[in-house]
Amino acid sequence: MSEQRVVRPTPISGFPEWTPQVRAVEQRWLDHIRAGFESYGFASVETPSVENLDVLMAKGETSQEVYTLHRLQADAKDDSDARLGLHFDLTVPFARYVAQHFNELTFPFKRYQMQRVWRGERPQEGRYREFTQCDIDVINVDSVPLHFDAELPRIVHQVLSGLDLPSWTLNVNNRKVLQGFYEGLGVKEPLTVIRAVDKLHKIGDDGVRDILLGEGLNDEQADACLALARVRGAGKDVAGKVEALGVTSELLSEGLEELTFVLDELADLPEGSVVADLSIARGLDYYTGTVYEASFDDDPAYGSICAGGRYEDLAGQFIRRRLPGVGISIGLTRIFAKLVAEGRIQEGRVCPTDVMVVVPNAERRKDALRTGALLRERGFNTEVFHSTAKVGKQIQYASKKGVPFVWFPPFGEDGDHEVKDMASGDQGPADPATWRPATDDTSA
Amino acid sequence: MSEQRVVRPTPISGFPEWTPQVRAVEQRWLDHIRAGFESYGFASVETPSVENLDVLMAKGETSQEVYTLHRLQADAKDDSDARLGLHFDLTVPFARYVAQHFNELTFPFKRYQMQRVWRGERPQEGRYREFTQCDIDVINVDSVPLHFDAELPRIVHQVLSGLDLPSWTLNVNNRKVLQGFYEGLGVKEPLTVIRAVDKLHKIGDDGVRDILLGEGLNDEQADACLALARVRGAGKDVAGKVEALGVTSELLSEGLEELTFVLDELADLPEGSVVADLSIARGLDYYTGTVYEASFDDDPAYGSICAGGRYEDLAGQFIRRRLPGVGISIGLTRIFAKLVAEGRIQEGRVCPTDVMVVVPNAERRKDALRTGALLRERGFNTEVFHSTAKVGKQIQYASKKGVPFVWFPPFGEDGDHEVKDMASGDQGPADPATWRPATDDTSA
Repeated sequence: MSEQRVVRPTPISGFPEWTPQVRAVEQRWLDHIRAGFESYGFASVETPSVENLDVLMAKGETSQEVYTLHRLQADAKDDSDARLGLHFDLTVPFARYVAQHFNELTFPFKRYQMQRVWRGERPQEGRYREFTQCDIDVINVDSVPLHFDAELPRIVHQVLSGLDLPSWTLNVNNRKVLQGFYEGLGVKEPLTVIRAVDKLHKIGDDGVRDILLGEGLNDEQADACLALARVRGAGKDVAGKVEALGVTSELLSEGLEELTFVLDELADLPEGSVVADLSIARGLDYYTGTVYEASFDDDPAYGSICAGGRYEDLAGQFIRRRLPGVGISIGLTRIFAKLVAEGRIQEGRVCPTDVMVVVPNAERRKDALRTGALLRERGFNTEVFHSTAKVGKQIQYASKKGVPFVWFPPFGEDGDHEVKDMASGDQGPADPATWRPATDDTSA
Repeated sequence: MSEQRVVRPTPISGFPEWTPQVRAVEQRWLDHIRAGFESYGFASVETPSVENLDVLMAKGETSQEVYTLHRLQADAKDDSDARLGLHFDLTVPFARYVAQHFNELTFPFKRYQMQRVWRGERPQEGRYREFTQCDIDVINVDSVPLHFDAELPRIVHQVLSGLDLPSWTLNVNNRKVLQGFYEGLGVKEPLTVIRAVDKLHKIGDDGVRDILLGEGLNDEQADACLALARVRGAGKDVAGKVEALGVTSELLSEGLEELTFVLDELADLPEGSVVADLSIARGLDYYTGTVYEASFDDDPAYGSICAGGRYEDLAGQFIRRRLPGVGISIGLTRIFAKLVAEGRIQEGRVCPTDVMVVVPNAERRKDALRTGALLRERGFNTEVFHSTAKVGKQIQYASKKGVPFVWFPPFGEDGDHEVKDMASGDQGPADPATWRPATDDTSA
C-alpha cells in the first residue's frame, strides 16, 4: 500500500456535498417538503437525469449551460446515447413526460418532482452546477382553475415555514396586470417593458427609465410604469392602489381580479408572508398570469429561493394538446447551502441510532442481538455493539456517536434489563417490550 | 401553437421512467429500504453525481462505461469542469468521500447511500444506463469486527423480505476458504482459480475444468476445485463438508471459522434465505473474506440482485490509512424494473390523496378550505375540490383519481359534516376534528 500513489481528493467547485450530520438535516428537509406536497394530494414523478438534446432544446434556445454526455470510449456500433444531455430544470422533463404519458395520466394532474439538476454555470454564491429543485405543478387540458394559483403559495408557505429559515417573503404579481397596464398606457411592446421592469432590482429606477425611454416610451409613460412597479400590499387595497394610477384596460381589470382573488384566498396567512409586489415580472416569456418569487428579507440580492407562475401551454412543442398550468419551484440547494455556509443549520446526529445495546460477554451475545431485534421491531433504530469489548469502551462508542440511550441486557442468566439516558446520566430498569424514552430524545 | 413543430418524445433506451402509480411503489420501496438501513444505525451519505476522472479511474482501470460531461458550448475562461464523469457505482465515491472527510467522520463508520449511478452499457435485460443502487458499508481504521459480516446479510434479508419479491436466496462464501483450499492443494496462482470458478454458472463444470487444466492444474486438483464449488449448506455442516474433501491450510481453517460464524449468527433466519454456496467467488479482486451474492431462485440467469463482501482497504488510492470494511449493494432498479416488466408490481394509487373535500358552493368555499386544513393537520392528505362544479362532478373526480374518502362539509350555515367511503359506498356524519377511517384505506 505504501508504494501506491495517493491522489488526495479535493472538492469539486459547484458540486456541494455534506457531512453525515448535515446530510441528516437535508434529508429531514426533503421529507418535510415531500410530506407537505403530498398533504395537498400531489403525486410524485421522477424522470431520468438525461433527455435527448432535441427535447432540451425544444424551446429553440441553445443553452451554454447544458452538460452533454459522452462515453469515455465510444462504441461505434451503438451510439444510441450520443445525443443526451443532463436536464437543467424539471419543467422541460415534466413537459416531455406529460406528452409521452398523456394517455396514462389523470387530469388535472398535480405532480411534485424533487430531483437534482445540472447547469454548467460558473460557480458563485447561490449558483451550483448540481443542485436539487423541488417543483410542484398543476396542469390540465385546456384550462386550470384559479383555485390553484392560490393553493400553490399556500403550500410553499406551509413547507418553508417548517424549515426554520431566516425571514423570507413570497411576492406575488400577475402578468395580465403588467401587460394590461402597459397596453392601457398605449405602449406598443408590453413585453419589452416587462423585461425592463424585471431588471429593476438590479439597475434601479433610473436604469429602467433609460431603457423605457430608449424603447420609445415618453416620460409620462415611463413614470407610470415605475409607479406601478412601486405598488406593494396585501388584500383588496392592491387593486385600489393600481386603479388610483388612472390607467384602464380590459386585461388590467382581469389581472387585478385574479390577483385580488389570490391575495384574498391567502388572507389567513401570517401578515407579510405573501405580499403583492407589482415589480415582480419573471423574465421568462411563457408566464401569462400569476407569478411568484420569494427571497430572503435580509439578503434579497442572493436571488430568488423559489419562483414560478401560470403558463398557457406546458408542452406544445411535444404534443398537440393545450396544457395550461401553474407551478412553483423551490431552490432547495440554494437555500440549504447558504444556511450551511452561514452556520445557521443546527446539525443533526452523527448517526440515526436511538439505542445502543451493550454486549456483556460472548455468552450473552445472542441475548443482546434478540434485545436489539425487539427494540428495532418497536420502531427504535438500534445498534448492538459489534464486539465483546469492555463495557466502558462500548459506552464510550455510544457517547462518541451521540447515541441517546445505552441498553444493558442482563449480565447473567437472570437479572433486569437497564437503560441509561446518555444526556441526563440517569440509569434504571427497563423492559425492552414496553420501554419508551421519557423525553423525545430520539428525533434525529 | 398549431404552426409549431411538434417533436413527439420517445423513451430513451436504458433510462427507465415510471407512471405515477408505479413511482408511488418505487418511493415506498426506497422508504422501506432507508428505514431498514437506519434501524441498524447506518447514517445517510450522498455524494455528487460526478467525480473527477482521476478519481473514477484511480483503480487503474479505464472503463468504457464512464460517461464524461461536456458543456454544449465550452467556456474557454473556465474549464474547471472539463475532467468530470458521472459515477458508475457508489463505492468509488464513498472511498473518495471517506478520504476527503476523514477527520470529520466517527469510526467505525456505518453509512448507507441510495443514489442513481450511470453506465454507458449497451441496454439489455437487467442492464440500465441510469439506475439506483442502495449500498451499505461499515468501514473502520485498521480492522472491522466480524460481527458486521453477519449483520449486513441480516439487514439485507430484513429489507428484501419486506418488498414482496419472487423468492430469492442470499448466498454467502468466504474468499479465504477458496484461496486457502487452493493453496492447500498446491495451486500456485489461487486468484486464477477464483476467476475461473467465478465463471462456473456461465460455462459449467467442463468449461472451468478446461481453464484450470490450461493453467497447469492436474486432474486431481481440478476435480477438488470443482468438488469445493459444489458445496452448499447452512450452519456448521458446511465446514464439515469442506473438511471432508481432505485439503488443509491455515488460511482455509481461518476462512471456515469466519464462514461458520456468519452462518451461525444467521441461523434464526427462515431456512433457505441465507445459504453458503462455495461456488460464489465475486470476480472483483479487492474482496478478501466474506462475499455475498443474491439472485432470484426462478431466474438465476438474470444475475445478482445484490452483492458485496469484505475488503482490506477501501481508499488506499486516496489516503494513507488502512480502511478495511464490509459492504453490500442492492440493485434496486434491476429488481424493480424486472417486476414492473413482468406485471408483478401491484400499482399504487394515482395520487396520495386520502380525502377530497367537496366545495358545496361559492359561499361555503372558505369553510371547505378550513375543513381541508384541519384534516391535513390531522395527518390526512387532503384535496379541496378546485372549483364549485356540481357535486356529482366533484365526486366523479375523486372516483377517477381513486381517492378513498369524499368529505361533505355542511351545505348551509348549519348542518353536519358527512364522509363517504368510496370503496363501500357508505356515507354518514363525521366530525373533522376526530374522524378516522374504519379500515386503513389511506395507505398508498
